[in-house]
This record gives sequence, structure tokens and C-alpha cells, in this order.
Amino acid sequence: MPEQPELTIQGWGPGGSRVARVEEAPDDDGDGSLELQADPDLSSALPRAARRHLARELGWTPRSTPAVRVGDIRLAPSRLPEDARAAMVALLGEENVATDDLSRLRRTGGRSYLDLLRRREGDASDAPDAVVTPGDTAETAALLALCAERGVVVVPFGGGTSVVGGLSGMDADDRPAVALDLRRMSGLHDLDLPSSLVTVGPGMRGPALEEALAPEGLTLGHLPQSFEFATLGGYAATRSAGQASTGVGRFDDLVAGLTLATPTGVLELGHPPASAAGPDLLGLALGSEGALGVITELRLRVRPKPRTTAYEGWSFRSWAAGLAGLQRLARHDLLPDVVRLSDPDETRANLLMAGGPGATALRAVLRGRGHGEGCLLVVGWEGLPTLVRARRRAAASVLREGGAVRAGRRVGESWRRHRFEAPYLRDRLLDSGLLVETLETAATWSALPVVYDAVRRALGRSLTRAGRRPLVLSHVSHGYPTGASLYVTVLADRNDDLPIQQWLAAKREATDALLAAGGTLTHHHAVGADHRPWLEREIGPLGVEVLRAVKQRLDPTGICNPGVLLPD
Amino acid sequence: MPEQPELTIQGWGPGGSRVARVEEAPDDDGDGSLELQADPDLSSALPRAARRHLARELGWTPRSTPAVRVGDIRLAPSRLPEDARAAMVALLGEENVATDDLSRLRRTGGRSYLDLLRRREGDASDAPDAVVTPGDTAETAALLALCAERGVVVVPFGGGTSVVGGLSGMDADDRPAVALDLRRMSGLHDLDLPSSLVTVGPGMRGPALEEALAPEGLTLGHLPQSFEFATLGGYAATRSAGQASTGVGRFDDLVAGLTLATPTGVLELGHPPASAAGPDLLGLALGSEGALGVITELRLRVRPKPRTTAYEGWSFRSWAAGLAGLQRLARHDLLPDVVRLSDPDETRANLLMAGGPGATALRAVLRGRGHGEGCLLVVGWEGLPTLVRARRRAAASVLREGGAVRAGRRVGESWRRHRFEAPYLRDRLLDSGLLVETLETAATWSALPVVYDAVRRALGRSLTRAGRRPLVLSHVSHGYPTGASLYVTVLADRNDDLPIQQWLAAKREATDALLAAGGTLTHHHAVGADHRPWLEREIGPLGVEVLRAVKQRLDPTGICNPGVLLPD
Repeated sequence: MPEQPELTIQGWGPGGSRVARVEEAPDDDGDGSLELQADPDLSSALPRAARRHLARELGWTPRSTPAVRVGDIRLAPSRLPEDARAAMVALLGEENVATDDLSRLRRTGGRSYLDLLRRREGDASDAPDAVVTPGDTAETAALLALCAERGVVVVPFGGGTSVVGGLSGMDADDRPAVALDLRRMSGLHDLDLPSSLVTVGPGMRGPALEEALAPEGLTLGHLPQSFEFATLGGYAATRSAGQASTGVGRFDDLVAGLTLATPTGVLELGHPPASAAGPDLLGLALGSEGALGVITELRLRVRPKPRTTAYEGWSFRSWAAGLAGLQRLARHDLLPDVVRLSDPDETRANLLMAGGPGATALRAVLRGRGHGEGCLLVVGWEGLPTLVRARRRAAASVLREGGAVRAGRRVGESWRRHRFEAPYLRDRLLDSGLLVETLETAATWSALPVVYDAVRRALGRSLTRAGRRPLVLSHVSHGYPTGASLYVTVLADRNDDLPIQQWLAAKREATDALLAAGGTLTHHHAVGADHRPWLEREIGPLGVEVLRAVKQRLDPTGICNPGVLLPD
Repeated sequence: MPEQPELTIQGWGPGGSRVARVEEAPDDDGDGSLELQADPDLSSALPRAARRHLARELGWTPRSTPAVRVGDIRLAPSRLPEDARAAMVALLGEENVATDDLSRLRRTGGRSYLDLLRRREGDASDAPDAVVTPGDTAETAALLALCAERGVVVVPFGGGTSVVGGLSGMDADDRPAVALDLRRMSGLHDLDLPSSLVTVGPGMRGPALEEALAPEGLTLGHLPQSFEFATLGGYAATRSAGQASTGVGRFDDLVAGLTLATPTGVLELGHPPASAAGPDLLGLALGSEGALGVITELRLRVRPKPRTTAYEGWSFRSWAAGLAGLQRLARHDLLPDVVRLSDPDETRANLLMAGGPGATALRAVLRGRGHGEGCLLVVGWEGLPTLVRARRRAAASVLREGGAVRAGRRVGESWRRHRFEAPYLRDRLLDSGLLVETLETAATWSALPVVYDAVRRALGRSLTRAGRRPLVLSHVSHGYPTGASLYVTVLADRNDDLPIQQWLAAKREATDALLAAGGTLTHHHAVGADHRPWLEREIGPLGVEVLRAVKQRLDPTGICNPGVLLPD
């Protein structure tokens, strides 16, 4: 089992410096590949043209705004009562109940822009009072019962990669809180080869599972941007989607069953391959974000490693043409396994950030074909060679009918090589005085253009200061027959006096706008603390009451991650 | 909109006689097609060889056991209090509140073997006290509130095709009950072409929807055996699967959203294309069987009508070889859109029932290749011609590696032509003194052979009388990467003194056996009244408590179909 490195406390990556996890060696030989560089130093992380573009668009002057030293982060003493601690030690052993500063800091919050701002400013007021590490379902259930009895809040902790405040630990009653670290439950428990099912602990991460499956020629294939650090239990608790989810399915689709330990007992959910025995209770545990209990085991669908993979780029003259092209593919079940359509602003930014003669040449070619303000589409195909060939041909014909032109294999391969790097780059941009955050939604094909316009308008309105507008880069990252997701990256000159308020106002406007336009509150980031105020708009007051009734039955004292999902 | 004929009161089909709904004209020119005949008269419904086979295997002598005349069915007077009736009339209008005998009889129970036995014997003790037909969501919600206030049980009624006692109307408190007929809510409300979404009323049936979609070149593609009579709302409430569900997905997969009217309010569920905004509440409404409220609108995913379809037969030497072949297809995502693997007993029975020189010739060919005790596999491919061709070729190579041999196109086409006919034949067999019932389950590929053996043993044990064994015919009807469904038809000499007890004992033994072996309680028939006693074994006591908590919130007085789903 490979080592599972912990995220640095104030940013992305193990230990605070970038460690490359790319599959292939860098490849920038100037013939069309798009390289997105990310390094501790901004000037080497971004080509000069990209820096100039950002400075011009945002009215931003790169400046050094470093994080405080980790040793200077303010941490209040643990509030866990000694008798509660002693009871936990009696249950789990001294070595599995930690109250030292470093253990607590490492399980403080997630990795949203707000989390990073707080940690960079030296604020750890949301730290847990202790870190507990149960070893199995029975210990977890006993621990939850103990915490319910003693009024201690429990926040499950996997990889710490939440970007929606999923680990906020907020509690209306201000009770002491423990982070329940899943790292001792990270083993592979069973592999049922004929049924393509693997049983794992929730603390296992994707790379460890892929390594364990490789000798059998199998893969899970779930590849979100957080792949290096996020846990399988976290994927289930947040209804994650990966970069190849258009093909392999959302994480929901990969979960055949799971065990949920709650303060009032243990639920065994899911009956593969399928059942009609009443409502789907497995679907209640997926997306429960720790608010109903702790996922202690998962049964996942695996598949043969694809015998062939092909990544390639296409270009559309406009965003509308790109969306129409994807919609036609979707309608005929011809979507690739990976699909990623950038809008004109993201396309321009990506080409500038790529730098190098290859990108310059590609830009010239696209301009020559009238695609100077166009949209790049990255697609990836995986599977049996004969089927990939047939699907690619059929899709290519649909894309060409929609006015798309090929942008080459290197565009696709370059994206693939750098697929996990954006969070590393974000740290460097934060160091230099920028606001950088993402948000995401999904909508039907009919509603998607309206949602896109609404979100851009709202962010532009909210983040424009003294005539300087933000840069809003968008792409479709997952396609479905009925619609698609929309992923938005926003960059702006940071308001160093009130950076948190600056983003909260923008997030509020953007969320109101996307909901009003018909988008969902979140396509794959979950609700967390950040989206709680809008949950009722998504599922209605009675929907919230149904969830409350379920929570009341499983967690009557409300100790399970009370800061997320359900509004107060 | 096509006429929606009502089912006859004591059997299958409109008005009690068979009406052919086949797409093509019958085609029995003796060159290999397998014809399954069904007629009012058993001697014309079954070829002599099949009758002889049944008589020999079952120790059964065909005898006339006709149903009582409809006019002789015993029906107690309506118990609906006059003030409740008046309130319903005030809400819905006189024409939408019926208490006459025929209206009540037509909404009595479903079409399980037990339902048919009762109705054939003249027992309608489970009849509703009235039939109400609200016209929209608001009227339905108001009616539910009214019934909650007055203590009147509500049983939603779609096509009346439940085979698990879904319409039993049983109530521990023995309150009066109304059938809430959905027929006034059967319109097409919206068609969002770019998003491939259609919005319909729950009382619409498959044929009507297909007719409405045809001009747009679209199809829903959900084709269960009950296709002619079942409603779209019923499919959602019972988590139906259709004959092509391996390809197009279970009905669950086709529901993008729905409206659920409950006694405490209306839920709007589902957010296409996908959402991560908390647990999946849509999945709570699917399979809720009327116990949480009434589905009053559905948003369904449609798709282009397939440009090509190809049905064909294959043969395996043994059941084990057949299962292994399907499992290999499933592992590589090469399963056809329709897949139907019959075990040796069902294969033999089907070939005998087909009769004619074509079937005789096919039997001889299969014997000559060592497949005399083999298993027939019917597969169907649908979609774009180039993709169907690539998938068929890849699958054919996997099937041949597994020892399968082609049995020809006519085997597939004949199955397709007669796909909805079995329930008509059942009526004729019931007329002749037979016990005929089906049950179904699903299991992982690893567990499936064990489940198969266990169910056959249990049925054999329970239904053997005086040395005469039942005939147990099984097939896999739906494939998944992780496992498959198993559909079992059982025939036996009926115990005319205690026919209900005879089947209840067999059902109990078979269900205990399949659950112990790792099967699910039901793959696509739902829980109803018949499977209620076992729900706790499937989802655990805490799972049942979670469902009770949801029901308590939405239906605090327990008026919503209290006879199904949740154990008393």
C-alpha cells in the first residue's frame, strides 16, 4: 500500500511544496502541446504573457502576500473535557486520541479559498479539540454513541480536501468537537473478481486503490482534481464526480454498497446489482456529508483497465456552437469518457498560460480558421480498441457537422498530463495578491446557457472594484443526456482589507443567480457549510424536513457534523 | 392520445379475451421461428407436445376450473362515511367520486396469482370503498389532507398490474379506503427537446407516451411485460425494470424528477442532469409504492428511436457456461440492450411450446452440437448502426470464446414478437387447474448460481405433492457489471382445496432461501404486501426505522397505502 501523504496546513500538496505527480515526463517540444506550469515561484509558474494578461485584465499588480508561519497560527487550547477524553482513550487506546496542536491543525477545515485565507492569516478558530482514529465499524459506532452521550460533536476527516466548508465543525450549541480521522480504516478488505466489486475502508485514497487493483488489470477510474489526497469515503459522503465521470459514471454510480455507523446503530446499505425493495436508502447515505453518521466501509464497482486511451482537442467557433455540439453528442449517447469544453475566456487564458511556440502556433492556426475567439474542447476516449474507434468516428462526424475542427492530440495529452495541477498553482496566485476560487453547478441543456450568463454577470457585478473586472473562466466538465455541469474559476484583485467579505458577497450573488436561472446548488462539490443557506431553495422546505426527520432518527442529539448540509 | 383500455377484472387483457399487440404479423413458416401461442382455449394455446410435457412432468390432468361469473363476485357495501364522500365530492366533483360496484371491482387488487385466485373464486373482500379521480397535483394534495383528517386510507391506482399485492389496501386499523385512480392525470405536459426530457402525468401508459414521442423520432424505451396496461407513475412507485433495461437502464434511471403529493405537502424532487446537493431524495420517492404519497407528475429522459435493431439467439452447452458468458460480457461493458438467458428447463419448455417444424429442426441442430440440454440466450441490440455493429462483433467474439453457438435471428425475433404474451397464457393455464406464478430476484455474479440452486430446491421441496414435482423455469432477464437478475416461473398441479395456502407456503420457502443465498427480495416487482414480512431482512431494522421516520413526517396518520412496503 503506497504512503498516503498529508496535505500541508495552509495550501495544497504534501508539506507545502509542489511534488509532481504527472504520469509522463513534461513534453514541451514546441509542436502544439499546451503546458501549464506550476511552481513555488509565480514568475516560473506563469509565462510572462499570462502574467501580463492577468495584470491587464484584473488591474492587478503582483505583490508578495505570503502566509504567516505555521508556528504563528493561533490555536485555542482543546476544550474536550478530560472525562470524555478518558472514555475515548478507554475505547480506542491512548495512541488514537490526540490533542496536540499539530494533530489538530492538520485536521482543521478543508481547502476552500475561505479555508486557505483563514489559515494563511493564522486563524485556526475552527480547529477540532481532538483527533480520534477508530479502527473499524464497531469502534466507530461505539465512539459515536459515546460522543452522543457526552455531547461531543464529530466531524469525519478523510483527505481534508473539501472546498465547501465540509469540515467546518460549526455547532449552534458550541459543543466541543473531535475530528474522526479515517486513516486507520484504509485497507482493501475483499475483491470479488467475477462481480467486479472491491470492498475497502473509507480512509483509502484513489492512488492506493489503483495500485492495489493494477495487478488484476482493474481500475476504479475515479479521477477528481483532488485525486492525490481525497479519500474514497469522502467521495461517497460528498457525491463526488471525477474527470472521467462522463464515461465511468459519478462516484454515486460506482458505490454498490456501504456501511454507515450512526449514533443509534449501524446501517448496511445497497444490494448489488440492483433491487426494487423499497426506496433507495443507499442514496440517503451518499451525500450525507457526515451529518447522518460515518461511512466505515465501501463496496465499489471496478472495471478492466482500458486497453486503449485517446485524448484529443477540438475547437468550436463559439460557446453556443460548442454547447450545441456536446448536446448532439449527448443526445445520441456519443459523449466521450472525458469531456471538457472551455469558454472563450478560459480558452484564451489556457493558451496564454501554456506558453511556448506550440501554443503560439495553435493560436495562429485557430485564428486562421475563424476560431480566434473560439472554444477548445478536450475529449478522452477509453475502452476496447474496436469500440473506441467506432465511438470516435461517430462522434467526429457529429462534431464536424457542428462546425468543430480538430485541434490535435497534443492538446488532449497536455491537459491529461497536468490534470491535477490547478490547486498547486492557486497557492502561488494567493501568494501574489489574487482572489482565486471556483464554483460549479449543472443544468439541463436548455437552461445551461442562461445559467452561464447569469453566473458571469453576478460575479462580474460583485467583484468589479474601481472599474477593474474579475476574470471568469468557465468550462463544461461533465456531460449527460439531459444536461451538463459548469465549472467556473474566478480570479480578481484581492481586497486585502476584507478578503473574506469580498468573496462571501460574490459567492452569494453568484449562487442566487445560478439557482434563479435553473442550475443546481452544486454538481460535485457538495453542500458543506458554504451552501447550507441555499439547500432549502434546492429541495424545498418539506425536503429539508424529510432530511431532518432522518437525521433525528439516526443522530437525535445532533452531534454528527452539525455545521454542514442542513440549515440551522 | 390512444385509448387506455382497462384490464379485465379476473385476468389479463382488455375485457378478458386476448387482444394481440404484436408489432409484426405472426410468422410461423416453419423455418426456425419459435411461436408461443396464447388463446382462450388451452388446446390451441399449447401444442400437444407441450401439454404432454406439462402433464408428464407435473402429474397434472387438464381439467376445467373456470372463474365464477363477474356478477357473482361478492362485494361488501361501501364503508365510506357519507360526510367523507360529500367532502370529496365538494373537492373533486360528483363525477370523480364513484362508489358503484363496477368501479370498485375494477380497482380491486392487482394481478398476482393470489389476486387472480381470489377474484376467480368470487372474493373481492379487498375492494376499495370508493374510487376517486383527482385531476392535478393540487387536487391530489388537498384530497390527501382531507383523507388524513377523516381517517380514510388512500391506495393509488394506475394500471392495476401489481404482482406483489401492491394494491391490497390492508390497514391494521381497518379504516375505509379509497382507490385514487390516476387516469385523469395522464397527459403530456412538456417536451424539452434539447434536454431529452418529457414531463407527463403519472396515469399515462407506455403506449400512449411512445405514440406521442414517435413524431419527434423519440422513445422512452421502457418495455416491461405489463407495458400495455401499467402506468408511468406505477413504474416509478415500484422501481420497475423493462425488457430492454440492460441497455436503456431501469426506470429509476429514466426518472429525472417527479412531484410527490403527500398529506403534509408537496415535494418537487430531482434536479437534472445531476446534483451533489445532499442525499438523493428522488430515490426515496422511487419505490415508495404509495406509502409516502402520490406521484402526480414525472420528468422522464427520452432518447432517439434506435436507427437499427437486431435480435438474435445463441446457445450455451450449460447454465454455468451461459452465466460465465454473460459475466464476461458484463465485465467489459459489452452486454446487449436486451439479454435473456434461459436455463435448461425453460429452454426445453420454450422449444416444446413453440412447436412447429422450425423448433423441431432447431432442437435437432442443438442436440447435434452437444447442446441438447443447453440454454438459449436471446439478445437484442439497438442504436446507431456503426456502434451496434462494433458492439455485436466484440460480444460475438466473447460469446464464442465461452463456447456459445449462434441459434439464429429468428429465435430473437420470435421472442420479441411475443414479449408481452405470457400473462394471457397464464389465464388459460389457470382455467385448466394449474398453479402458475413468477418470482424474481437479483444477485452478484458470484452469488447468482447459489441463489438459483436455492430457489429451485425450495420450490421443489414445497410444491412436490405425492411425488409430483413442480416445473421451475428460470432465466436471467437483466444484466449489470456486478450481477444479474433471475426470473423464475413455477408451474404445478394446483391444490384445489387450499390453493392460496399452497402458494403462500412455497413463496415463503423460496423467499427465505433466496435471501439466505444472497439474493435481493425483489429486482423489479417491488415489495407490496407480499414481500413486507421480509423487508427488514433486506434493509435491517434500522433501515426500516429510517423509512418509518420519513413516513411519519410525510404521512403522520398513516393513510398512504398502509398495506404495503413497511411491516406492521
